[in-house]
Amino acid sequence: MAKNVGILAMDIYFPPTCVQQEALEAHDGASKGKYTIGLGQDCMAFCSEVEDVVSMSLTVVTSLLEKYKIDPKQIGRLEVGSETVIDKSKSIKTFLMQIFEKCGNTDIEGVDSSNACYGGTAALFNCVNWVESSSWDGRYGLVVCTDSAVYAEGPARPTGGAAAIAILIGPDAPICFESKFRGSHMSHVYDFYKPNLASEYPVVDGKLSQTCYLMALDSCYKHLCRKYEKLEGKQFSLLDADYFVFHSPYNKLVQKSFARLLFNDFVRNASSVDETAKEKFKPFSTLSGDESYQNRDLEKVSQQLAKPLYNAKVQPTTLLPKQVGNMYTASLYAAFVSLIHNKHSELAGKRVVLFSYGSGSTATMFSLKLSEGQHPFSLSDIVSVMNVAEKLNSRHEFPPEKFVEVMKLMEHRYGAKDFVTSKDSSLLPPGTYYLTEVDSMYRRFYAKRPVDTTNCENGSISNGH
Amino acid sequence: MAKNVGILAMDIYFPPTCVQQEALEAHDGASKGKYTIGLGQDCMAFCSEVEDVVSMSLTVVTSLLEKYKIDPKQIGRLEVGSETVIDKSKSIKTFLMQIFEKCGNTDIEGVDSSNACYGGTAALFNCVNWVESSSWDGRYGLVVCTDSAVYAEGPARPTGGAAAIAILIGPDAPICFESKFRGSHMSHVYDFYKPNLASEYPVVDGKLSQTCYLMALDSCYKHLCRKYEKLEGKQFSLLDADYFVFHSPYNKLVQKSFARLLFNDFVRNASSVDETAKEKFKPFSTLSGDESYQNRDLEKVSQQLAKPLYNAKVQPTTLLPKQVGNMYTASLYAAFVSLIHNKHSELAGKRVVLFSYGSGSTATMFSLKLSEGQHPFSLSDIVSVMNVAEKLNSRHEFPPEKFVEVMKLMEHRYGAKDFVTSKDSSLLPPGTYYLTEVDSMYRRFYAKRPVDTTNCENGSISNGH
Repeated sequence: MAKNVGILAMDIYFPPTCVQQEALEAHDGASKGKYTIGLGQDCMAFCSEVEDVVSMSLTVVTSLLEKYKIDPKQIGRLEVGSETVIDKSKSIKTFLMQIFEKCGNTDIEGVDSSNACYGGTAALFNCVNWVESSSWDGRYGLVVCTDSAVYAEGPARPTGGAAAIAILIGPDAPICFESKFRGSHMSHVYDFYKPNLASEYPVVDGKLSQTCYLMALDSCYKHLCRKYEKLEGKQFSLLDADYFVFHSPYNKLVQKSFARLLFNDFVRNASSVDETAKEKFKPFSTLSGDESYQNRDLEKVSQQLAKPLYNAKVQPTTLLPKQVGNMYTASLYAAFVSLIHNKHSELAGKRVVLFSYGSGSTATMFSLKLSEGQHPFSLSDIVSVMNVAEKLNSRHEFPPEKFVEVMKLMEHRYGAKDFVTSKDSSLLPPGTYYLTEVDSMYRRFYAKRPVDTTNCENGSISNGH
Repeated sequence: MAKNVGILAMDIYFPPTCVQQEALEAHDGASKGKYTIGLGQDCMAFCSEVEDVVSMSLTVVTSLLEKYKIDPKQIGRLEVGSETVIDKSKSIKTFLMQIFEKCGNTDIEGVDSSNACYGGTAALFNCVNWVESSSWDGRYGLVVCTDSAVYAEGPARPTGGAAAIAILIGPDAPICFESKFRGSHMSHVYDFYKPNLASEYPVVDGKLSQTCYLMALDSCYKHLCRKYEKLEGKQFSLLDADYFVFHSPYNKLVQKSFARLLFNDFVRNASSVDETAKEKFKPFSTLSGDESYQNRDLEKVSQQLAKPLYNAKVQPTTLLPKQVGNMYTASLYAAFVSLIHNKHSELAGKRVVLFSYGSGSTATMFSLKLSEGQHPFSLSDIVSVMNVAEKLNSRHEFPPEKFVEVMKLMEHRYGAKDFVTSKDSSLLPPGTYYLTEVDSMYRRFYAKRPVDTTNCENGSISNGH
């Protein structure tokens, strides 16, 4: 069986078009700080009329293959996680086959995995399992998470975002799965769903979804702790992992979640909670599970107590989710990308625990163990290829009015046929794919922005503006 | 690593409501034999207004767990393959979690896999890989294929159907995967797709889809032969497998497909083609690939030459696809179920090659090796649990007018909210789940027809009419 299977390489793409949350707050007539402090968000990327989940995934897959110099023939499995449906039958994976067909490689297993924001995690597990299975043929697996999160006008709108992430899977990886330390919680709930098929917007019960998220978090953490204790013969606490990465619909929920784990450690009498903290948690020890999810005082005390650990173990993961917004399936992995970007030189030997949540609901907490790796599959290679700072710096801020205009246009375009886009790709970095046309048979056509080779060096996408 | 991983148990459910193809032919004013001989279909099942992909999958999963006496806590992974979208975010898997939650089991990995009719195969491979991976926890995997295939009025309408199949996965199985003998063909085509999000009906280019199917078949067969020859050191031909099972949109395509494989063997100079056959194929040996797909004479000659092998190696797999229709993701596995139903006592030691196709397109040809197995996981247990003959015999034939009426009603119901169904479950077998209501928030509610325990014996669903 292949050993040390995990993540060899990653790349991320997010649209350069974005809107500042502070500006959106003012435009929406929301109270000051509602989006920036209340939600904890800084900025939000969105697809303009020339981008969608297919174009973003074409962009990020092409980029990953080129930058790590992977021959497309070396991919044996390709899995996509997405909840942005542009066709109810034809998978996004089949669009990506264009990249591989032209190299003569059509023998690539895998399709799309779907359940809200969890599809990327399902795709990732499927790819890792394939490499460990008897059907593995020695080639790489490739996972793509791609989503455009948009909401109807109203309180959920600032929790949008958009991105695509590509993740290369194989043995002897710098980012390995500790696959025995894993707990899932799956249940039938209607917290966020998309039953209105003609509309791109979901039906959301924000309060219920937050409770479902926290309940799933508790349940997954219990399972993970139980399995860890069974295998390692000692209790697990927050001190046993160096970083915690959360699916991030908005940053405030990540703060609450980590604090909730500390409360779990208190209830479990685990070593991460000192005597002072125990005293402060004590008044809440008699709350029922349901009560504890609603108790604002507990929330406040937990967050206060968790603050130092949050700053050390979570804060480095929050950059992209705060700057780009909710990327649905890509959200958790954008948080993980943020950690690598911020801390790569200190990550060797570290354990990172990730929590993936998809409404409906499906959730898994799982563990990764990191090492530096070897070129071209090393943490520092990943950092230089992803080039996060440059991508963030070269974005184009839209005023809220123009963002709303784009949303209105996209409401008409969603599920429509027989239109051409402006074909204006001038805001997109070189090498970016974009939508040019949807014909009378709903067939979608894409073009690629030429790569300015004179301006393109060593792993960095130079976007020329 | 777990050994001999494969299928331990199966069950199938299809709606008891059906329409005879001969009657439909007459009703549609089609020429006599167009559906029965032209398409090769006998009868077509369809969901009445109280059934859908969720109710069918609830029915079949409950039935499998009960009949094989599987404790729901013993399921560690649950994967659904479907292309029938009733929600663009919430997976069908989360609906099925209701069965497991009430037993206290929420730690079940897996979501929905989607690409047209191929999603079930993707789900199956994912489950098998999980059992062979380091993340396997010793429990069973469960795969569910569930679809309702409906078409707008016109030539494609008789190619509908509906069913759900549940497949239990684990080690030491009577139906094992020969996972090294596997070839896939994935490409970007628009042969059949569902871009009109508000409609349940697909956009279909029937002629293109047939060519894409046959091209994928050729490509998969080439890959499989190449891999077999590399590992076994000898050429593969149709004689090296005992049965061939095809995804079956309509039976005629299955006939064409098997004949096409014989033509492949001729081109490859393989042992299944004797001198007489070689002579007859010879005039077509200079055709280009593209020409060969369109050549009606070649089609005719191939089918004639393949007839004896077809009768022996394919015909036993065609019962349910001809009687129930296209079941999309369940179609291939209903054909496999037909084989077990028809030949179970002769299957030990036999090799069965399956071809899965999903438009868009994704396709895999793979190989299974069968043994009798041990109670409760034996081929004869599977036959008695599935009880195919009884299920077929106790159906309710609708006149075409009433079938068309149901289709019209369902056009309005698809994607709609705020309605109650007739709640008339009298035509459904005891133990069948059915839809009662979709509320103003699009939430779906189901009930279960009581099981008449006095009338229920040894693995058979007695449906009391």
